[in-house]
Amino acid sequence: MENLQKVLNDIRPLKKDYLEKAKLRLNSLTKPVESLGRLEIIAQQYTAIREDLNPSIRRKMIFTFAGDHGVVEEGVSAYPREVTVQMVLNMLSGGAAVNVLARHVGAEVVVVDIGVDHDFEPAEGFIIKKVGYGTKNFTKGPAMTHAEALQSIRTGMELADEYAERGVDIIGTGEMGIGNTTPSSAILSVFTGLKAEEVTGRGTGIDDEGLQKKASIIEKAISMNRPDPENPMDVLAKVGGFEIGGIAGLIIGCVAHRIPVVVDGFISTAGAMIAVAMNPTINEYLFYSHLSSEAGHKQMLEKLGQKPVLNLDMRLGEGTGAAIAMSVIEAAVKVMTEMATFESAGVDGKSK
Amino acid sequence: MENLQKVLNDIRPLKKDYLEKAKLRLNSLTKPVESLGRLEIIAQQYTAIREDLNPSIRRKMIFTFAGDHGVVEEGVSAYPREVTVQMVLNMLSGGAAVNVLARHVGAEVVVVDIGVDHDFEPAEGFIIKKVGYGTKNFTKGPAMTHAEALQSIRTGMELADEYAERGVDIIGTGEMGIGNTTPSSAILSVFTGLKAEEVTGRGTGIDDEGLQKKASIIEKAISMNRPDPENPMDVLAKVGGFEIGGIAGLIIGCVAHRIPVVVDGFISTAGAMIAVAMNPTINEYLFYSHLSSEAGHKQMLEKLGQKPVLNLDMRLGEGTGAAIAMSVIEAAVKVMTEMATFESAGVDGKSK
Repeated sequence: MENLQKVLNDIRPLKKDYLEKAKLRLNSLTKPVESLGRLEIIAQQYTAIREDLNPSIRRKMIFTFAGDHGVVEEGVSAYPREVTVQMVLNMLSGGAAVNVLARHVGAEVVVVDIGVDHDFEPAEGFIIKKVGYGTKNFTKGPAMTHAEALQSIRTGMELADEYAERGVDIIGTGEMGIGNTTPSSAILSVFTGLKAEEVTGRGTGIDDEGLQKKASIIEKAISMNRPDPENPMDVLAKVGGFEIGGIAGLIIGCVAHRIPVVVDGFISTAGAMIAVAMNPTINEYLFYSHLSSEAGHKQMLEKLGQKPVLNLDMRLGEGTGAAIAMSVIEAAVKVMTEMATFESAGVDGKSK
Repeated sequence: MENLQKVLNDIRPLKKDYLEKAKLRLNSLTKPVESLGRLEIIAQQYTAIREDLNPSIRRKMIFTFAGDHGVVEEGVSAYPREVTVQMVLNMLSGGAAVNVLARHVGAEVVVVDIGVDHDFEPAEGFIIKKVGYGTKNFTKGPAMTHAEALQSIRTGMELADEYAERGVDIIGTGEMGIGNTTPSSAILSVFTGLKAEEVTGRGTGIDDEGLQKKASIIEKAISMNRPDPENPMDVLAKVGGFEIGGIAGLIIGCVAHRIPVVVDGFISTAGAMIAVAMNPTINEYLFYSHLSSEAGHKQMLEKLGQKPVLNLDMRLGEGTGAAIAMSVIEAAVKVMTEMATFESAGVDGKSK
């Protein structure tokens, strides 16, 4: 824990002078001031995170953490548990949505088995760093021990360390785990105090009856485990998931290395909530890719005080939203670095 | 005019069976049904426009129409008239925002001089098809003759014919013309009956006083010229612009060739309003790229009954919004054609 605490303590707010210098640069470009809206804000944020006034995005990566969930035995998902394994294999052969979208935007996908209930063969683009074979059913006790929660976070941090060393300019989060909207809704409920029924959605597509059951299971898990909202590690251990811890750790590690992180959808944002609860400054380093149509995501983003880049009614996870948003962020950075200035292009400025 | 009328009469609604077959394909892919939201709707629309169940987007182009506006002498813009010429040259040397964003998404930019008050030298990626040297000041009479309005539309149609022949899979609209939010607001006011002050925005950045003056100039132009909302050609001639006519014509021509069109922002949508007023079925072939932060764009999209792909608070024009949205549309098409199916990947379907 000392190591994690030290990393968290060392995180610094973005430097204002980088934000200001990026803004000056943007205002010198051949366009009306602020006319590229969000792109300009994104470019400023990216510049300040990297502390580089002429940044370029060469290597883009998406880490898709996979894990299983004991609570699935309560019937919270529309899909059987085996689908986690099957989808990991689908991702490894390049056929999942995240693979298609990552290829489209020129990003690499790395799948991380952080807790799937299966022993996989090694494969390219696949990292096996198991914390366990799925979490425990959190209606009967904590999802994991505090040691496992810490290990899941350290797993994400180690990946950030490793890839920071190799060189990467932006990292997207993603996940795969049948049942994982259930812990995500639980985390949201704990951090906001909202009732389970207000923050529980249909996930991969349960019906009305299933939705009601899912909310009551979340309610039950919280009232039995009593996670402490002031203690994010306790929240993760009691009602979280291994992939959610991995995402939180990846975020913390990336922020420590000043690598901008693109947070995917509902489950990834649950991971971000854990990380931000450990140090609110982390939020300055994150791009929230899109507003998921999963009920509860809006409340998560409101709690975090963040506005998503996109709103495409997506609710798939895997890193799909992060992939598309990553391309918009790259566009924003290129605008700042590649456009002509009024001076260089010989264009007159505002006349009044 | 016969030719235009024939082209308009020949436009057919999208074929429902292509929409349905695309939906079936999307539902067979390894993701929960409809979980890619807007991407799935976009893929269906693209499939139906192309009448191709396995479409691929190879060539992407953006046509940026440039024209000047007589009404600029009334002081409606924050920038001097000369900036139209300077920005055309900036685009031809690749330094404008649209160049950067088009490069980012792999699209070509073609700049079309349809009415700039300047004689340019020929250049690569530049088409000179002048209808005139800027429109007339429409506070003193119509912006152009009906013959010029028709010629501006035909210019756009000819480009669609030419590039349909050469092969292109998606076309974005764009424009450059100091003063051109003024005719765009006027067109919106005429088609919706909204007062000028309700649909007039700051364009490139005029102040409060300038805004009030701009609205009163639009009011005056409409009450003097009395454009007939039932006659789109009359609206274009009296309060439009050459580039707006070019965009309307490009849209009509593309639709005739079943080439999907990505409509940029406020001014491009004014062009789309002209085209859609000539034949409402045209709307089925258009993707509206983004919601501009220019006041009035929201009302345009409401009038057209359309939802934009992006909302990034942009208000630059040139085709910048079209470029980014084009990449999202391409992503949607790739999802449909490149993802594995449940069957091919051996993934279990929904269990309940």
